[in-house]
Amino acid sequence: KQIVVLPGDGIGKEIMKSAVRVLQAIAENFNHQFTFSEQLIGGAAIDQDQSPLPQATIQACKKADAVLLGAVGGEKWDSLPGDQRPEKGLLGIRKELGLFANLRPIKAFSPLLHASPLKEELVNGSDILIIRELTGGLYFGEPKKRIPEENAVVDTLYYTQEEIERIIDKAFQTAKTRRKHVTSVDKANVLESSRMWREIVEEKSKAYPDVTVNHLLVDAAAMKLITNPKQFDVIVTENMFGDILSDEASVLTGSLGMLPSASVRTDGVGLYEPVHGSAPDIAGKGIANPLGMILSASSMLRQSFGMEQEADEIENAIQTTLEQGYHTPDLMIKNGTVVGTEEMTDLVIGNLA
Amino acid sequence: KQIVVLPGDGIGKEIMKSAVRVLQAIAENFNHQFTFSEQLIGGAAIDQDQSPLPQATIQACKKADAVLLGAVGGEKWDSLPGDQRPEKGLLGIRKELGLFANLRPIKAFSPLLHASPLKEELVNGSDILIIRELTGGLYFGEPKKRIPEENAVVDTLYYTQEEIERIIDKAFQTAKTRRKHVTSVDKANVLESSRMWREIVEEKSKAYPDVTVNHLLVDAAAMKLITNPKQFDVIVTENMFGDILSDEASVLTGSLGMLPSASVRTDGVGLYEPVHGSAPDIAGKGIANPLGMILSASSMLRQSFGMEQEADEIENAIQTTLEQGYHTPDLMIKNGTVVGTEEMTDLVIGNLA
Ligand SMILES: CC(C)[C@H](C(=O)O)[C@@H](O)C(=O)O
Ligand SMILES: CC(C)[C@H](C(=O)O)[C@@H](O)C(=O)O
Repeated sequence: KQIVVLPGDGIGKEIMKSAVRVLQAIAENFNHQFTFSEQLIGGAAIDQDQSPLPQATIQACKKADAVLLGAVGGEKWDSLPGDQRPEKGLLGIRKELGLFANLRPIKAFSPLLHASPLKEELVNGSDILIIRELTGGLYFGEPKKRIPEENAVVDTLYYTQEEIERIIDKAFQTAKTRRKHVTSVDKANVLESSRMWREIVEEKSKAYPDVTVNHLLVDAAAMKLITNPKQFDVIVTENMFGDILSDEASVLTGSLGMLPSASVRTDGVGLYEPVHGSAPDIAGKGIANPLGMILSASSMLRQSFGMEQEADEIENAIQTTLEQGYHTPDLMIKNGTVVGTEEMTDLVIGNLA
Repeated sequence: KQIVVLPGDGIGKEIMKSAVRVLQAIAENFNHQFTFSEQLIGGAAIDQDQSPLPQATIQACKKADAVLLGAVGGEKWDSLPGDQRPEKGLLGIRKELGLFANLRPIKAFSPLLHASPLKEELVNGSDILIIRELTGGLYFGEPKKRIPEENAVVDTLYYTQEEIERIIDKAFQTAKTRRKHVTSVDKANVLESSRMWREIVEEKSKAYPDVTVNHLLVDAAAMKLITNPKQFDVIVTENMFGDILSDEASVLTGSLGMLPSASVRTDGVGLYEPVHGSAPDIAGKGIANPLGMILSASSMLRQSFGMEQEADEIENAIQTTLEQGYHTPDLMIKNGTVVGTEEMTDLVIGNLA
């Protein structure tokens, strides 16, 4: 399997090393062949190549079976114009690869629950999968520009029917493998695109009689994620709403540093990255939490390569390591032992079956 | 003072009665003249007049010094086409009156804190004012329609420079009367409108040297509202982000039923409504919480009429009533006494100085 690794900026480089080491251990245990090709993206690419997404990176990713991404961005590049910033590399590679579905699982990890901002009984047992449309809507619609004649500015929320249909299909298909409920989030009382979205959900739902579905306005969803997160199974929504709600949901369980995300298309190719950012403030100190990145790698094994057993093994090793009380400084485990990035990685590898 | 009252739907009618009674008591105590003109809006207007916002309502509101609104909407009208729904009345009156600034204070009420979904120490002492742009952006931008030739749909996020400037001014001016900090929320790494927004904030901030300002991406804001609500003083943001974030924030303190909102323009005319909805499930039962509506009325006294003392008196009476342990069923006060809408109103009036 050909894997492109894009460490990116800040702690991206450190945590990517961890993920590659875990994958190498898995390859040995299971007799797989993984080849890794490292490429530039984000600020690192701007520094070396004057572009957040060099052609060489795009070409390598297009030939790969899957892509691992660390994190992009940092203050150093914040004053660059919009289209030359590190984030543009991330948006660009999603679009170039046609990765229209972003999957973000949020699951309460029992050893970390006390670090949740919510009362534990509210969040304990919650297990949400947010499916966000990733290549349409306000992110890419045109026009997106200043209008000097009107002294105004415009961005455009544009969706084709097909773009909506394929993400809704993804949501229903995924719900079938889980608790069989889909919550579709929109703003149908204001947006025409949401009204079309809602119609398509209704239409599609007929093909999935075993999956129940309900509609929720985005403002209500933002409330209910906090007041009753357990009510959700799969949440599906458009790009911008998904950006906001998935970040909101990511802090509920007290373990942001551990959350993976997968951006996929229909043929199995995907890009896997942790939910957290490049954390420039702790970069280079060897204390970054590698678990979000390692869990992203295990998600790659499961979703792009169909390697269920291998993924289970990594996830079990992480669970064991946390239960043994080991954690990086960002996590809080009562009476636990604080370790750095490398030591954490060693411990996880040591706990592989 | 001419006040138009728009009870609207569901519990709107019941809680509006409470607010009018409290205002009448205040008028007596302070020797004011308030005249009330009741008009139709929302579902009630659709039922009687085939329109969610009849011309008579618009005319009456345009002549008024302030408008009180209960709540609009309900399942009964959910299957109507988008432009004939109750919410259209609300959007329409905001636009007709040019109410470009929506102010939503979120303050922890000590007797209710244990009902917060957050750990009490996180939320205790928080005091946030969200200022949402209310008449621009995705809500009103054109085109907003299906595009049959492309099998697609479009909504438009449009802002003029002037629209952004006046809401940013409102935020800085309001911050001066509070803790002198503004957090401007945008998505400048993706939206051109956000980049213009950020430039205007930077430019405007020069005129308010005593107010500090920081920028936050909307996804980060959605996280930080939960993990550290106390860091915020005034938050200012565009219409759709404001809709989502203000509803998210409204559940933090465990007292959604008590939150007022004010929609104002520069000359002091405003529309005041509670944050909660029309709650059709409890309508007509006499158990609705009138405090959000009563606090909206006190906000009207303060902001549209400059009646600070009168507003203080209402707010103190409510605080006293809660401290005496009285609450409607939606609130939870340990060892408190549950009362209905009318009894709650009597108690508040009894506690006026
Ligand atoms: C960096 C930014 C452009 C990106 C997005 O908004 O999609 C990020 O917030 C994310 O969610 O992956
Ligand atoms: C009813 C709806 C159109 C409205 C809005 O989105 O503005 C409501 O959610 C609000 O926040 O007042």
